[in-house]
Amino acid sequence: MSSEFDLIKRYFTRTAPDGYLGVGDDCALLPIPSGRSLVTSTDLLLEGRHFLSDIDPFLLGHKTLAVNVSDLAAMGAVPAGSLLGLAVPDVDHAWLQAFSEGFHAFAEACGCPLIGGDTTRSVDGIVISVTVMGHVDPKTVLRRDAAVPGDDIWVTGELGAPDVALALLQGRLPHDAQLLAATRPALEAPQPPWRFAQRLGGVGHAALDISDGLAQDLGHILRASGCGATVYYAKLPIHPGVASLAPSVQHHAVLAGGDVYQLCFTAPSSQRERLHTMANEEGVRLARVGVTTTEPGLRILDDNGKQIILESAGFDHFGDRA
Amino acid sequence: MSSEFDLIKRYFTRTAPDGYLGVGDDCALLPIPSGRSLVTSTDLLLEGRHFLSDIDPFLLGHKTLAVNVSDLAAMGAVPAGSLLGLAVPDVDHAWLQAFSEGFHAFAEACGCPLIGGDTTRSVDGIVISVTVMGHVDPKTVLRRDAAVPGDDIWVTGELGAPDVALALLQGRLPHDAQLLAATRPALEAPQPPWRFAQRLGGVGHAALDISDGLAQDLGHILRASGCGATVYYAKLPIHPGVASLAPSVQHHAVLAGGDVYQLCFTAPSSQRERLHTMANEEGVRLARVGVTTTEPGLRILDDNGKQIILESAGFDHFGDRA
Repeated sequence: MSSEFDLIKRYFTRTAPDGYLGVGDDCALLPIPSGRSLVTSTDLLLEGRHFLSDIDPFLLGHKTLAVNVSDLAAMGAVPAGSLLGLAVPDVDHAWLQAFSEGFHAFAEACGCPLIGGDTTRSVDGIVISVTVMGHVDPKTVLRRDAAVPGDDIWVTGELGAPDVALALLQGRLPHDAQLLAATRPALEAPQPPWRFAQRLGGVGHAALDISDGLAQDLGHILRASGCGATVYYAKLPIHPGVASLAPSVQHHAVLAGGDVYQLCFTAPSSQRERLHTMANEEGVRLARVGVTTTEPGLRILDDNGKQIILESAGFDHFGDRA
Repeated sequence: MSSEFDLIKRYFTRTAPDGYLGVGDDCALLPIPSGRSLVTSTDLLLEGRHFLSDIDPFLLGHKTLAVNVSDLAAMGAVPAGSLLGLAVPDVDHAWLQAFSEGFHAFAEACGCPLIGGDTTRSVDGIVISVTVMGHVDPKTVLRRDAAVPGDDIWVTGELGAPDVALALLQGRLPHDAQLLAATRPALEAPQPPWRFAQRLGGVGHAALDISDGLAQDLGHILRASGCGATVYYAKLPIHPGVASLAPSVQHHAVLAGGDVYQLCFTAPSSQRERLHTMANEEGVRLARVGVTTTEPGLRILDDNGKQIILESAGFDHFGDRA
């Protein structure tokens, strides 16, 4: 079996950018521009719980990093570097090659190079920990508690596809090869709007990524900011594959479906034109879906102005699932 | 069962220092002083592999952070913040309370507050990932490749106790309650010299922590720096409990025993007095144990000038163990 150091050298060491000290010392070194604060987030991913054993390792490598870069985007941060902890039960070179390639490809695309980590042998199953670091102007960082009543509510990208793909893969929706082909890329290869997001500081007020479902994540903004919101279902950017589904399935996928890794943010109405320009320049789909209110609570209205009531509000890692 | 958010609030949220944004947003925010670089390291710890199931959770919390602060110390960095990923098979409130208290106690002692993380339910066994962040002047950061032939070689703290305690607990050494009591604190509650270490930049040349054993870790410095070394066994700071053991057991514990979380560093001989003063001021035991040479390789000499040959050079997480 290969040694720890060979694995790191073979799969995870790339040349570090200027000013960085990468894989190979006790710690990695990463420059932070003067006047900027470090922004950081960490995730723990377990085989059999957060990903299936037969998942494509290239896509897993991509998604491992992408979901965390999505957290950086939700703060308006510029990605700067990443750390990877990886425990595997045994050394599968083809798997490691594909996983590391998927990780590195997205890391290079978004300027978030892998600068350090830890590899070890697991007792059972694959364990992945990932930490991302970026930087932001602390004066304009996007926090969840910064929404103001009267703000526009915006959503980037499209909603619903990851939840539908997962339901198809798990057999909770009847087999539909065409629908799976349409929705699966959103589940397995999320593309957070990291470039758009780093222009959002000073323009938007509050932001979150939609990892746990729009209703739950927007609810976090509202509670933290001490306000409420009205959202118009007809204005939500629904993935075309999802739009044809029965209302109850569709509502769940769009409003409670997690794993979206797009942004929900609020901004004053004076910023509408600027936001549309930024979205066009960065190739991001952007939809204005509602407004924040002084009245607390989240109201999601259908075409007739009637409130849509969800059975389940989103994902809770320790909650009892139905 | 408690929800993810309750667990975070109950056990892991403390008031963040000024300029920080702590647990509760997509990312944590951490100020980095102007002109300093971020220094960061991550570890993945698995129950049954890196710690035993019956370990005291308070001590586990302490050690989880301490071994990573030791990596910061090895770069001469000032600790600034930490992230924790924790997966548990079920919610044991007494365990979580003790673990988090052990973590927070050391975090507060060394200025490395917990600012973010991820909690989830594990499939089997406890999984811990920890990331530490600190800052350093990039011009004087302690790297492993900066040793110069003719440097003094220094070791902080004491060597050998963690390996002996582990051997006693695992039954590889015959039962000896007194010896276990003397050596166990070094294994379970390591105290890396983080305060001394942050004064070492600009004084020392190369540094590492002795996590994998002195011979292996000093070997990393020598290979990275392109030099060799002579170390005098009689000058090594051997833990008093270990000094009475048979030579072969003692040599293994002192030279190949990992889990020490003290520093091995090199420095020019002109810095001897300054180093002794710093060590006295910070309450750190400091021993000058050898010298780096232009001749490659590591020679460890006994009292008679005869080279000590080790059977195993240190710990390799993927190597086949005897």
